[in-house]
Amino acid sequence: MSKDKKLVEKITARDTDFAKWYTDVVKEAKLCDYSSVKGFLIYQPNGYAIWENIKNNLDKRFKETGVVNVYLPVLIPENLLQKEKDHVEGFAPEVAWVTKGGNEPLEERLCVRPTSEVLFCDLWNKEVKSYRDLPKLYNQWNSVLRWEKTTRPFLRSREFLWQEGHTIHASREEAMERTRMMLKIYYDFVTEDLAIPLIQGRKTESEKFAGAEETYTIEAMMHDGRALQSGTSHFFGTGFAEAFDIKFLNKNNELEVVNQTSWGLSTRIIGAIIMVHGDDSGLVLPPRIAPTQVRIIPINETKEGVLEKANKLLEELKKEDIRTDIDLSLKTPGYKFSEAEILGIPLRIEIGPKDLEKGTVTIVRRDNREKYEVKLDEVTSKVKEIMEVMQKDMYNRAKEFLDSHIYTATTLDEMKEKLENNKGFIKAMWCGSEECEEKIKDITGAGSRCIPFNEEHISDKCICCGKEAKDMVIWGKSY
Amino acid sequence: MSKDKKLVEKITARDTDFAKWYTDVVKEAKLCDYSSVKGFLIYQPNGYAIWENIKNNLDKRFKETGVVNVYLPVLIPENLLQKEKDHVEGFAPEVAWVTKGGNEPLEERLCVRPTSEVLFCDLWNKEVKSYRDLPKLYNQWNSVLRWEKTTRPFLRSREFLWQEGHTIHASREEAMERTRMMLKIYYDFVTEDLAIPLIQGRKTESEKFAGAEETYTIEAMMHDGRALQSGTSHFFGTGFAEAFDIKFLNKNNELEVVNQTSWGLSTRIIGAIIMVHGDDSGLVLPPRIAPTQVRIIPINETKEGVLEKANKLLEELKKEDIRTDIDLSLKTPGYKFSEAEILGIPLRIEIGPKDLEKGTVTIVRRDNREKYEVKLDEVTSKVKEIMEVMQKDMYNRAKEFLDSHIYTATTLDEMKEKLENNKGFIKAMWCGSEECEEKIKDITGAGSRCIPFNEEHISDKCICCGKEAKDMVIWGKSY
Repeated sequence: MSKDKKLVEKITARDTDFAKWYTDVVKEAKLCDYSSVKGFLIYQPNGYAIWENIKNNLDKRFKETGVVNVYLPVLIPENLLQKEKDHVEGFAPEVAWVTKGGNEPLEERLCVRPTSEVLFCDLWNKEVKSYRDLPKLYNQWNSVLRWEKTTRPFLRSREFLWQEGHTIHASREEAMERTRMMLKIYYDFVTEDLAIPLIQGRKTESEKFAGAEETYTIEAMMHDGRALQSGTSHFFGTGFAEAFDIKFLNKNNELEVVNQTSWGLSTRIIGAIIMVHGDDSGLVLPPRIAPTQVRIIPINETKEGVLEKANKLLEELKKEDIRTDIDLSLKTPGYKFSEAEILGIPLRIEIGPKDLEKGTVTIVRRDNREKYEVKLDEVTSKVKEIMEVMQKDMYNRAKEFLDSHIYTATTLDEMKEKLENNKGFIKAMWCGSEECEEKIKDITGAGSRCIPFNEEHISDKCICCGKEAKDMVIWGKSY
Repeated sequence: MSKDKKLVEKITARDTDFAKWYTDVVKEAKLCDYSSVKGFLIYQPNGYAIWENIKNNLDKRFKETGVVNVYLPVLIPENLLQKEKDHVEGFAPEVAWVTKGGNEPLEERLCVRPTSEVLFCDLWNKEVKSYRDLPKLYNQWNSVLRWEKTTRPFLRSREFLWQEGHTIHASREEAMERTRMMLKIYYDFVTEDLAIPLIQGRKTESEKFAGAEETYTIEAMMHDGRALQSGTSHFFGTGFAEAFDIKFLNKNNELEVVNQTSWGLSTRIIGAIIMVHGDDSGLVLPPRIAPTQVRIIPINETKEGVLEKANKLLEELKKEDIRTDIDLSLKTPGYKFSEAEILGIPLRIEIGPKDLEKGTVTIVRRDNREKYEVKLDEVTSKVKEIMEVMQKDMYNRAKEFLDSHIYTATTLDEMKEKLENNKGFIKAMWCGSEECEEKIKDITGAGSRCIPFNEEHISDKCICCGKEAKDMVIWGKSY
């Protein structure tokens, strides 16, 4: 057992040092690593496989609403980036500039895209002439660059992977509807498939995307009580469209400016999966998104019939589209169990001579270690059943955690005190001024996460200045 | 009919001006467009959807052989690029350099990856210690930059999409086996799913990838007789591994250097699909890769029952995983037919009141316009059957074209004459010297495409210098 212990011991206990626990899990589960290019990450096979499942699943949801995929250039000319005033102010300080191409200095420098609004606008300026050309519902899966100063696996790096959706519409209402529709898709995907409970809402003025009229967000709570912005959907109105002159002839033959949206979800979400569900033994993956859902571990596999049955089981499970593998390495069963746990594989199936005598196998759930003795000919149906229950349990457990870690405060002192003694979010009223928002963050360390769609009326007064309150805000610390 | 005619008339006849025909098809089928970023293309929804199908299909074939996907940084530090001498000579002149990040000049400039061999080597230098860590079978789907001077849709641009696979192995034999295995995967995919016949072989010394010991290639013939390199698989031996010090302890506890491969297929292949199968009415897509396989076009849809039956048919076909849509726009049937043809949709189904009276629909094949009157309750099985036949017919037609456009030559004059009077490739013997290879290209305009796996012995002498011949080479003009 000493070897097995050693394996798990590589992971710092979650409640001892959460940040260290996080990087240990990422490292031991081989999800992602620092590259020797400063500030850039390597997405390793185990981490990238999670991203592939996220992509496939989300992409399907997008396409069901009429979205099509495209690919636009990785480089943006400086003059394009500068066309929308707020946007360039937001992004120019953190882009990387290409100044030389094929040994020649460039006439105009090009930045590696930090996001692609301006490229889509430039395209639509040429593509759109009539209301018949609308709406355009485009999306792309790509990488973007932002010159960050610190690096943390999945959470912060100079390059990250994401999807960016961009749409234009004939009316303000239709664009607004699309903005909310895409937030709902994120919400459904993250809650249903990643088993992560969320708070939905809109961002305050200062937290909005550079150039947006409204930014909607889904916010998740990590196990240390911090907030992680998990997906955003922006409504631009006609801001970009006016700067880029995207006009169309409406049905009455009048020129109108289009209304626009954009929405994105990135590899950050993998950080959320780790920090919402992981435990002291490593990663815990929700069955729906796990690259490997079931690992078969033969015990005493030299005994007659064990390997044969194990392999037969593998084929049976695969045939039912259950993502299954088998561990045939020369390690001890204990070591193999630990490895499967570190990787967060939802179910492991132990199959040995004793099981075979009884005509059963043992199925073990990763999240709560519950064991099931299951008859050999019932494994497939039982696996499906357990995975469904596990997916729901994981969501419910996280939802309970979220709900029980949101505190109400009506004074700054109370807010500060509650944040010092508890991990979690604060619900508090706010007057709407940026000054108060900043002051609250300075004093308590918690920034505004969002004005939730379900606002409660906690009091009449702003928690900071005492003036008339405008909105209830969810406040939380973040990464 | 005048409107319908106009639609097709936008496409130059293929035999009048092949280059113009090509760009017309790309434009009218809305596959790809020039962006306002000089030298960069926009992959439009119709073109990107073809790429998505290529990706899904190839990715599955890769994974069946144990390959896993990863993602490595988009930027490469200059010192890394310079570690392998031949490699840097090959790529340094055509890369784009990032010299500024977030307003600060960089200490070391970074190039946007033109290919990622050095990044994989840098990773493996850290990852690999023992024979137990081998093989590594990695792949990534990404975009790369090469500072080209001219731009042609899918064929040449400063940025293109591709996959690059990179593997390392404990032995030379295993690496060589992988190099050939991946070429075979490309061969099978392109011939089976894209219906494009190929010549397989190895590149001459001067045509090899920068840093490779051997480069294997699949070469296709376009309808104008030119060659398109459609996928390459490189064997590196230990060249990169020595430069990057990638060593492992073998089973006898001795240090050894790994053997390496890389292999890639890019969006260029979409150019091949267009130029092998397209005709005067536009694109012709092989059913297996077509984003839309069947388009239903209702005729006189205001007549009772037409729309209802058409929509029912749509659902039936979709349920059988046949990628089907329906054209409900307010255009004439003739216009709709032309549109479906330009887009290369393999089958269209016409359904109108007259058909309904007879309880039938009309299915029309895109490639040869063959019409089938099919009973309503047999449509699904018939569609599957016709698509399979069409897929085979398209391959056979292209194979016949390829085979009948390869000419044998034993003198330079003969080669020149044959190339002037025919479109296609030349088979000719070669002594193996770069001097002759260059001279042949200068005089005839045809470069060496490959030394095919199935060499014939045409004569004893080099077609150029008359000295002893070493190999039979396939020569062809290219883009």
